[in-house]
Amino acid sequence: MSLGSFRPPSRVLMGPGPSNVAPRVLEAMGRPLIGHLDPQFLELMNEIQRQLRAVFRTENPLTIPMSGTGSAGMEAAVFNFVEPGDPTLVCVHGVFGQRLAEEMRRAGAECATVEAPFGSPLDPEEIRMAALRHRPRVIALVHAETSTGVLQPVEPVRRVCDEVGALFLLDTVTSLGGHPVLVDEWGIDICYSGTQKCLSCPPGLAPLTVSAQALERLQARRVKCRSWYLDLSLLGDYWGRERLYHHTAPISMNYALHEALNLILEEGLEKRWERHQRHHLALVAGIEALGLRMAVPEAYRLWTLNSVVVPEGVDDALLREALLSRFGLEIGGGLGPLKGRVWRVGLMGESSTPANVLFFLHALEICLREQGLRMEQGSGVSAAAGLLG
Amino acid sequence: MSLGSFRPPSRVLMGPGPSNVAPRVLEAMGRPLIGHLDPQFLELMNEIQRQLRAVFRTENPLTIPMSGTGSAGMEAAVFNFVEPGDPTLVCVHGVFGQRLAEEMRRAGAECATVEAPFGSPLDPEEIRMAALRHRPRVIALVHAETSTGVLQPVEPVRRVCDEVGALFLLDTVTSLGGHPVLVDEWGIDICYSGTQKCLSCPPGLAPLTVSAQALERLQARRVKCRSWYLDLSLLGDYWGRERLYHHTAPISMNYALHEALNLILEEGLEKRWERHQRHHLALVAGIEALGLRMAVPEAYRLWTLNSVVVPEGVDDALLREALLSRFGLEIGGGLGPLKGRVWRVGLMGESSTPANVLFFLHALEICLREQGLRMEQGSGVSAAAGLLG
Repeated sequence: MSLGSFRPPSRVLMGPGPSNVAPRVLEAMGRPLIGHLDPQFLELMNEIQRQLRAVFRTENPLTIPMSGTGSAGMEAAVFNFVEPGDPTLVCVHGVFGQRLAEEMRRAGAECATVEAPFGSPLDPEEIRMAALRHRPRVIALVHAETSTGVLQPVEPVRRVCDEVGALFLLDTVTSLGGHPVLVDEWGIDICYSGTQKCLSCPPGLAPLTVSAQALERLQARRVKCRSWYLDLSLLGDYWGRERLYHHTAPISMNYALHEALNLILEEGLEKRWERHQRHHLALVAGIEALGLRMAVPEAYRLWTLNSVVVPEGVDDALLREALLSRFGLEIGGGLGPLKGRVWRVGLMGESSTPANVLFFLHALEICLREQGLRMEQGSGVSAAAGLLG
Repeated sequence: MSLGSFRPPSRVLMGPGPSNVAPRVLEAMGRPLIGHLDPQFLELMNEIQRQLRAVFRTENPLTIPMSGTGSAGMEAAVFNFVEPGDPTLVCVHGVFGQRLAEEMRRAGAECATVEAPFGSPLDPEEIRMAALRHRPRVIALVHAETSTGVLQPVEPVRRVCDEVGALFLLDTVTSLGGHPVLVDEWGIDICYSGTQKCLSCPPGLAPLTVSAQALERLQARRVKCRSWYLDLSLLGDYWGRERLYHHTAPISMNYALHEALNLILEEGLEKRWERHQRHHLALVAGIEALGLRMAVPEAYRLWTLNSVVVPEGVDDALLREALLSRFGLEIGGGLGPLKGRVWRVGLMGESSTPANVLFFLHALEICLREQGLRMEQGSGVSAAAGLLG
């Protein structure tokens, strides 16, 4: 019995992640294995920590990739800093905020939530009132809601954390490497991300960084972290000076992350943020020129994930299927209450290119026309091209 | 800031894992990404499930790779089938049995243990007496103790499970793909492994399979699984018919696993087991011809991980360092109470070759001589070669 080798089809990945991965990263990932305690692997771990600190803009010593996807990063962030019975507050403006609240409850927290409709940002004053009422030990927020395309301003929540003495937990899965994420300047205590979005590395690792204040909380725990696999007090001894074996690190994924971070630091973070913004603005111009609407108010739009309202009379699933099967172009559908109502168009990392913006607008126009929509020929592409020059 | 690309040194991996990975698997892993909900990725998932069922020798529908290393497989196996307050019994004959007991306690179980000295197998009658006393809902056992090199017979523990009505949880991290593991024939309820040992795939996934009886237990849980990331009731909906998004699967790792399983099924499981046995016996003959001793009684020796007693007067760490730096040859040191007392020599998957057996014995002889041991020149290699013909 053999099923033959798997040859993946060629795809332009403009969904909510994974994004396209650079050849240099794929090549690095395919290099021969060495052991997880090999002196050269330990040196690679040091380099990855230095790279991650640069990308997170932090000096935090405990800055490491967790051995799982972004959701494992979320679980680690919650489980290590929340104990059974702890009051916590989660700001929910999408599926990933809901998931944070679910993780809080699985960690045994007394979890309160503040909610905003999907597609809108949260009101900082509501967060403040809830925090004053509930006195949380941790306030958790999704910076870039992958399910809606909303970028939530961080500073006002920071002030609330200071006011009530809470740790500030921030999900940057869809912002790190695409939007400014300034961990130290913003005073984020616990921050995690995933590799397969704006870092343009395959999925499988979750970068995480922890402030000195959060580390104190970790060391003062009354009961152990519920997860052994994600227990930072043990992982710190493998990634730190002691080099105590904990679990076998995913060697090849770490090769890939190292090379992906090299690419980011070679480009420069500021230039990378500008690139994401420029291509986002071009995409929006094209979308609007086609007569379509963005789902998120202008001031709160992610550059990395663009939510486009599915026009009246267009079959969401049929259109996405046509883009995939005829153009090899993947975009995402809506999640939760936005299912069938928006498309999620990613412009993350390697996928955020002028060529992809124009290709998408062109392919979208063809597919919309086929579903009976009328528009001036090439209007989307023209409007976008003007901003890409 | 850029740190340059990482070029791993060439290594022969004969430690406790990772093992060497075939070029075909590395090549597969380096192929371009597609999305985790791409129809072609969903088809690949189906194929991987079929392959894993063949390798586990099971018909269990719920047979999937967990998105983490072997330790995540262990945590999933425990967390999904144990509820707070459940009486459980863990059979401990090494570090990984200890870890199972730790996972049980983190899951909230009332965990009893039966123990054997490191390097010895467990006494089935002691397991039986403890089970009759403690009435566990789950009995957990490590089939192949990576920390000691002991293979624990499974059948007697199966009978104990039947007698007390317990689910049988078996860790096959260091046996699957190297020793017979017959999930259905043996009546294993929950069985997991890792990819980086005898499957010769990079670390990062943990194959897991669950019997109908265990699935009933899962469905009848009173409280949710403590982990969201590893919750099989949610993962089953992504890997099953519904295809509900749970977390972004590690795409590239799944490419690699698919190709590694292809290689195994092309070779044939029985032939692969024989190969592991043959090379183990040759290694043992060589070790004994050099005047060294195996740490485990003959009847309980793993074919995949060989524990060799460090001879009197030899510096353990110095010898391993010499093998690595001069020969690019990695072996493992002892863990826990065996630290400094044994070497752990892996012959797993792609690393289990005649060339590696002879290379290791040759390099070992040179390094032992340098530390002042006397032996007949080439005696180890000669003894082994006789069994490799």
